[in-house]
Amino acid sequence: MDGTTQTRQIAIAYVESLEQRAWSRLDALLAEDVVYEMPQTRERISGRSAFLQFNMEYPGDWHLRVRHVVADGSLAALWLDVRVGADGQDACVWVEIDEHGLINRITDYWPEPYDPPPGREHLVERW
Amino acid sequence: MDGTTQTRQIAIAYVESLEQRAWSRLDALLAEDVVYEMPQTRERISGRSAFLQFNMEYPGDWHLRVRHVVADGSLAALWLDVRVGADGQDACVWVEIDEHGLINRITDYWPEPYDPPPGREHLVERW
Repeated sequence: MDGTTQTRQIAIAYVESLEQRAWSRLDALLAEDVVYEMPQTRERISGRSAFLQFNMEYPGDWHLRVRHVVADGSLAALWLDVRVGADGQDACVWVEIDEHGLINRITDYWPEPYDPPPGREHLVERW
Repeated sequence: MDGTTQTRQIAIAYVESLEQRAWSRLDALLAEDVVYEMPQTRERISGRSAFLQFNMEYPGDWHLRVRHVVADGSLAALWLDVRVGADGQDACVWVEIDEHGLINRITDYWPEPYDPPPGREHLVERW
C-alpha cells in the first residue's frame, strides 16, 4: 500500500470514527501532538487528548458524510456534507499524516452562506 | 504521465493562468461546457465563455497563491491564499478533469472569518 492509499484510508476512517462517535478508533488515528486549526475563528487545539475532548463535547446531533476525498502523498482533502438536524452545511477539511501513519494536523473550513455581491447577475444563475 | 499527475498540473496551471490574467491559457484549460459553482451564494456559471468573462470582469487587484494542491485521479483540491490589497482570505477550490484532460467542473468555497461559539475556551487557544 503506497502512502497516498494509506492517507486516503486514514482520512476516510477519521470521518467514520467521528460519525460513529467511535472515540477509541479516533484516538488510534491521531498523533499525540496533533494540531487542529479552524482558521476562520483563529482557533487552535493542541494534542490528542484535548482534540478528543473537543469532539466528545461538541454539541448537537451532528452527522458527517464524505462527498469527496482526494489524497496525495501525506495530505488529504475532504469535502464533507455536514448535517445538524435539518440544517446542512459543506465543510472542507485538510488532513496531514506523519511518518508513523498518524494524523498530525487537521484544518477545518466551515464556509457559511452569504449574499452574492452585485455586478455578475448577467453571467450567473442561482439555485 | 498518469491521470493524477496530469490533474495536479492542470489544477496548478488553472491558478497560474488566473494569477497571470493569461486568458488564452485559461481558455485552453477549460471544457466548453465547464460548470463553475459557488455553493455559499448558490451561484452557478455555465460554459467556458461566461466563466472567462466572469474572471476577466472580476473586480479588485486580486492575487492567488497555491498553499497546497492534492490530486487524486480526475479530482484536485486546492488550498489557496487569496489577497486583495491588504486583505487576505483562504479559499478551497475543487477541480474536476474530464476524459479529454480539460477542466469541466470547478467549485469554490470562500470561508469567511466569524466569532467562535462559546463553550470550548477550555480547549482552545486563539491566534
